[in-house]
Order: sequence, then structure tokens, then C-alpha cells
Amino acid sequence: MPPSETKASAERSFELERIVFFSDAVYAIALTLLAIELRVPELAQEDTAGLYRALLAEWPRFLAFALSFWIIALFWIAHHRYFRYIKRYDYRLITLNFLILFFIALIPFTSSVLGEYGDSAGGIWLYAVNMLLLGLSDAWLWRHAATRHHLVDAALAPDLIRALELRTLTTPLAALVVLTLSFLIGGLASFGWFSILIFRRVLERRDSTNF
Amino acid sequence: MPPSETKASAERSFELERIVFFSDAVYAIALTLLAIELRVPELAQEDTAGLYRALLAEWPRFLAFALSFWIIALFWIAHHRYFRYIKRYDYRLITLNFLILFFIALIPFTSSVLGEYGDSAGGIWLYAVNMLLLGLSDAWLWRHAATRHHLVDAALAPDLIRALELRTLTTPLAALVVLTLSFLIGGLASFGWFSILIFRRVLERRDSTNF
Amino acid sequence: MPPSETKASAERSFELERIVFFSDAVYAIALTLLAIELRVPELAQEDTAGLYRALLAEWPRFLAFALSFWIIALFWIAHHRYFRYIKRYDYRLITLNFLILFFIALIPFTSSVLGEYGDSAGGIWLYAVNMLLLGLSDAWLWRHAATRHHLVDAALAPDLIRALELRTLTTPLAALVVLTLSFLIGGLASFGWFSILIFRRVLERRDSTNF
Amino acid sequence: MPPSETKASAERSFELERIVFFSDAVYAIALTLLAIELRVPELAQEDTAGLYRALLAEWPRFLAFALSFWIIALFWIAHHRYFRYIKRYDYRLITLNFLILFFIALIPFTSSVLGEYGDSAGGIWLYAVNMLLLGLSDAWLWRHAATRHHLVDAALAPDLIRALELRTLTTPLAALVVLTLSFLIGGLASFGWFSILIFRRVLERRDSTNF
Repeated sequence: MPPSETKASAERSFELERIVFFSDAVYAIALTLLAIELRVPELAQEDTAGLYRALLAEWPRFLAFALSFWIIALFWIAHHRYFRYIKRYDYRLITLNFLILFFIALIPFTSSVLGEYGDSAGGIWLYAVNMLLLGLSDAWLWRHAATRHHLVDAALAPDLIRALELRTLTTPLAALVVLTLSFLIGGLASFGWFSILIFRRVLERRDSTNF
Repeated sequence: MPPSETKASAERSFELERIVFFSDAVYAIALTLLAIELRVPELAQEDTAGLYRALLAEWPRFLAFALSFWIIALFWIAHHRYFRYIKRYDYRLITLNFLILFFIALIPFTSSVLGEYGDSAGGIWLYAVNMLLLGLSDAWLWRHAATRHHLVDAALAPDLIRALELRTLTTPLAALVVLTLSFLIGGLASFGWFSILIFRRVLERRDSTNF
Repeated sequence: MPPSETKASAERSFELERIVFFSDAVYAIALTLLAIELRVPELAQEDTAGLYRALLAEWPRFLAFALSFWIIALFWIAHHRYFRYIKRYDYRLITLNFLILFFIALIPFTSSVLGEYGDSAGGIWLYAVNMLLLGLSDAWLWRHAATRHHLVDAALAPDLIRALELRTLTTPLAALVVLTLSFLIGGLASFGWFSILIFRRVLERRDSTNF
Repeated sequence: MPPSETKASAERSFELERIVFFSDAVYAIALTLLAIELRVPELAQEDTAGLYRALLAEWPRFLAFALSFWIIALFWIAHHRYFRYIKRYDYRLITLNFLILFFIALIPFTSSVLGEYGDSAGGIWLYAVNMLLLGLSDAWLWRHAATRHHLVDAALAPDLIRALELRTLTTPLAALVVLTLSFLIGGLASFGWFSILIFRRVLERRDSTNF
């Protein structure tokens, strides 16, 4: 039994807070670095019309930026939710958390590949696989923490645990939708990401813990 | 009623703190990334005079950097002010907060477009629209939190709430000033941002909550 | 005796927390900046096969990214462990902590040199030396903090202190392994980093504080 | 009297903590972005000797990186010291703090100008002026906070306040030394920064608050 367990208490331990704030920093940096991919157009001569034409020509990059921003936001919200209930930590929790952060840190790269090559299946797949693995890491972390109330509050309702477990599958499911669509509609498959919103809506119907 | 409400208390909950610190990280990163746009001049041969000439030639980028730095600072101060009074959170607050962060994360991009094309209406508009939407998101968040004391301290004085509500409009107003000026004086319109200081001064006259 | 010592107490002082969170920010930024080195391939014409060929051709950069990510993670975990027990700080602790952060901040650079020139001994050495000095700084900080319980809890078990002291040597040892291997097997020497896992496993056998 | 004053108390208010952590994030990001300036050399053919020659040719950039890292570290330590004693905040403190952060955010830029043009007076001056203004902002903030114990603990010893006031002048002084030297010894003037260490040593002799 790791010594950390002995620190479990109503108000959360400093060590656990530190893990959480460290993760937040990684989420925040990944979120903000996304915008670096947006390039300032280089124009032969400066005129408003030309600038707008150049900016509009960048729409795939903007789309990739906006999509990735909101997906990272959803993952942060999930992370925020898990750690509301996690009261203890062990070495494996930290490792699984770093696994999540690994795929978060990759998003600025896979997102810019999507922005560049989003109309070919290749760019879509790389991005979707990144999200798939990220979502599965999330699921793994929650399963590790919640199973038999290993690291969560003993009083946590089993059906809330199941509800959160179910939620962890929304992004992987959406990733599969996108991967499938990419065979049928190619570049348009990226719009499959909106299925996340549908999945979430359905789940929110199912359970009352709408946050 | 979200479970979070049950956490409302004099000293703010860890979850609320986490939302705030996460936002701070995004503000801080956006703030510091602004400087990345400042380019080290490349000189044929190294001489002080030439270096200074090259640096002076960058003045529009410096102006854009300084302007954006202080505008982000004002938005951070506003955010700081709101969350002094916000004692609870719900799912919508988090979403609106991410909407704010979305437009904050865009600033390094729109700011460098301004630095590059600030003398054409195009660059000015993109930047002003970014600030307009950012300011409206701020207003939306505060309205959501403060209306009928939904998420703020029940004891919070209604006229203080109105005062802060009024403040949320300073940047959108300034953005409109800049947009209007851009038709009249083109590139010089950027100086319209100083109207923020005027609006704030006026509002500080009106109410005593000067912070 | 620095005034800070007077602040020692069960719940850690705000000043100490600030040192820790500041360090976390540096770790988190270094971790996320690693991915900036991953370049979006530029293709003559867009086709999935070509994109994958181009991405696969980047494998040394991916390897360097993944390796550095997990090494930084291990160093963060070590830092996390030390500061679980450090209850006071003095000027030297802060200086040694900055020495650690100095070598952390260098990793994105040495890591991209490794990604670029990992098949020549040169790239491997630069990276290994970075890790060697980082590991020694870690050891120095812990020795300063723990010797005669200078800054740690007086009740901290001496054999736990020794166990952590021993752990600080895993990365320097691995660095030496890699440096040696580089003479024998050249570019493949980078796989010597996996020896960290072996060393850690051995140490975890030795002592029970597996976190 | 700002409402914040009413929050003054032994354990510092959440709002004040937030100002401090926000500043830390900016310091940490500036610190880590410095390394971005270190460029991976591009070699015609890969050989260790060539790589080392290329890396050695970068020594001015390494010097600028190391110098700026430690100067930022010193400024962070000073900031850490001030806020150990600052117990309240007002609008002006926040503004002065942002003034400090403004010059901190500029360092990655002026530092890379120094790395590029450190052998011409131009690069040295830009950097020295940045540090001069940063140091003066520090002095201004501390003077505002400490004069007549405006924002610091009423029990804070006047000679400690004076001692810290004196310390705020070390970097501006060093900047003046460097500026003067630049006329006499050109590029070597950068070594004048080491005078900081001398000034600090002298001051530490003078007062006992060695942290």
C-alpha cells in the first residue's frame, strides 16, 4: 500500500493537487499552442481584399484549430470530473495520467497535420487515432481509479461511476465514426466529430449528473 | 441542480480554483507567446546603426505586441474580478469560460496579423472582431453567473453586479470605435483602442468599486 | 537561519507551494514544447500513401519526442517525491531547483538535436550529457534537503532518505550506459535509455516505497 | 479603500494567490521559451566533429540563453520575496505587476537579439535597457507595496523593507555597468552582468535576510 493512501482525506492532499495542476498546465499549453499553426498570410501587395482571400484560403487550418480546441476542452472537462472524485493517488494513476498528457501533447502536431492534409484520408486517420488513444487512456485511468473504489471516495455512488465510465467512450466512439466515414466521404469525415455532441447529449439524458 | 452547487462555501471549492488556475495558464501563455512574433532582424553586416534601423522598421509589430499585452491584461483583470465573486460553478459557466479562452488563444494570431497588416483595414478588422467577440463572451459569462445571483455570493450588492456588467462592455465598445475609425482614418484606427482607458475612467467615476 | 525555516509546519507554507507550482509550470511547458519539433511534412501532391511515407521518415523525431517525454515525466515524478517530504526551504534549495529547471528547459533543444542527429555519436552525447547533469542536479538537491534532515520532516525515516538518494542515480547511470554504448553500437545506443526502467525495477525491489 | 483590503489576513487571500500564480506562469513560460532560440544546426553530411563545430559556433546563443535564464531566475526570486511580505493588493499593485510581466515577456526577444548581435553595441544595449526597465518596475512595485506598510504586514521591520528596496537596484545597476562597459570593451560588456552577483554578495553582507 503506497504511503500516499495514508494521506487520503476529505480535503485533498497537496500531492494530489500538484498532479492536477501539473496536468492543467499541459492542457492549457497544448490548447494555446494550437493557434501557432495559424499562419499570417504573406501577400505580394497589401490590400484588404487580398488579405481576406488569403485568410479564407486558410479555413482548413482554422477548422482544425477550432475542432482541436473544443476537443481538448472536452477532455479537460472529463479530467476535471474524474479528479473531483479521486481522493487518493498511487504510482499507476500518475503513469496513466502521463499517458493522457502524452496524447494531449501530441494534438498540436496531429491537429496541424489535419489542417494541412485534412482532405486526404491520411491526415484524418492520424488525428482520429490520436483521439482514439487519448480517449482510451482516459477510460483506463477512470477504470483504475474507480474500480472497487480504489482511489475514489468510498461513498461514491456506483451508478455515477458507471455513468462516467460510459462517458469516457464518447470520444473513442466518435473517432471510430470519423475513421469509418473517411472511407465513404473522404475529407468531409472530419464533420463526424460532431457526433461527440450527440453521444454526450444521449448520455446526459441517461444520467442526471450533467456535470 | 449540479452537484457542484452543494460545494458552495465561504472558502472556494478546489474544483472552482482549478477552473480559475487553468484559465490563468491560458492567459499567461497567450501573453507570453505574443512576443514570439517579434522577429530578430537579419542583417547583411552587423553594425549598431543597421540593427537599430531594422528594429525600428519593426515598430508595427512592437505596437501590436504592446497593445495586445495590455488588452489581455485588462481581460485577465476582468476575469480576476468576476471570479472574486463567483462562488459556485455549473457546466455552462465552464463552457462560457472556454469560449473566453478560445478568443484569448486566438489573440497571438490576430495580433500578428495586425502587426503585419495593421495599415490596411483588413488586419484591423480581424483584430477588432476578435476583441469584440472576446468582450461579448466576458459579458455573457458574467450575466450567466450574476443574474439572480445564480453562481455568485447571495450577499453581492445588485449595483456592484450592474457596475461589473457595464464594465464588460468597454472592450466591445472600443472595438466598435476602432471598426468605425478604420473607415475614416485607416491604419491609424488602432489608436482607437485607447478609448478603453477613457471608458474605464468614466466607469470608475460612476462606481466606487475601482477594483 | 533563514526566516523561511520559521514557517515550517505540518501544512506546507505558501512560499514552498509557489516554488513547487513554478517548477511544475516549467516541466509542463518543456514537456509540451517537445512536440513542436514534430514537423508537418510538405508533400508535392497530397496522397495518403505519400503522407504516411513522409511521416514514417520522421520516426527518429518521434522516438526522440517519446523518449524525452517519458524521461521528463520520470524527473517530474522524482521532483514530486522529493517535495512530498521537503517541508522548509532556504536560498540554496531554490538555487538548486533552478539548476534542475535549467537542464529541463534545455531538453527540447537537446532532444531535437537527438531527433536530427541521433544516428551520429554527437547527438547522442549532447543528449546524454544533458540528462547526466540533470540527474546530478536532482541528486544534489535531495542531498542538500535530506542530509541531517535539514529541510525535510524530522520524522522522515533515514532508510527512506537513502532509498530516494539511490533513486536519484538511475538517470545518471543510464546516461553513462548510453554514452558507453554509443562507442560500441553508435546510433542504437539510444535504446540504452530503457536501462532506466531496469534500474528502477531493481530499486523498487530493494525498498517498499514504490511511490 | 479597495474591497480587497478587507480580505487582508494572516493566510493570504485566494485573489492574491491568483495574482502570484499567474505571474509565475509568465516567468516559467518566458524561462522555457528562451531555449527555443537555440537552433538545431543543419549539416551537409552528418559527422560528430561537424556537429560539434556547428554547436560550438552557436556559443553566443548559448551564452545569451544561460545569462537570461539566470537573470529571470533572480527576478523570480525577488518577486517571490516581495510577495512573501505582501498581504493585500490594490489595482495599482496589479498594474505594476503587469508592467514587470511585460518586460519579462520581452526577454526571449531581446535575449535572442543579444545572442545574434551580442558583439555589436546594439544588441547589448537593447538587452540592457530591457533589464534596466524590468529592474525599475520591480523597485516601483516594492516601493508602492512597502511604503508606509501600504500592502505589507504592519509588523514588517522597516530595515527589512529598506534592505529589499536596496536589492531592487542590483539589476538596474548591473545594466548601467554593462551599458558603460559596452563603450569601452564592446561585445565583452555582457560579462558585466556578473556584477549582479557581486552587488548581491555585498548586500547579503549588509543585511542578514539572506532570503
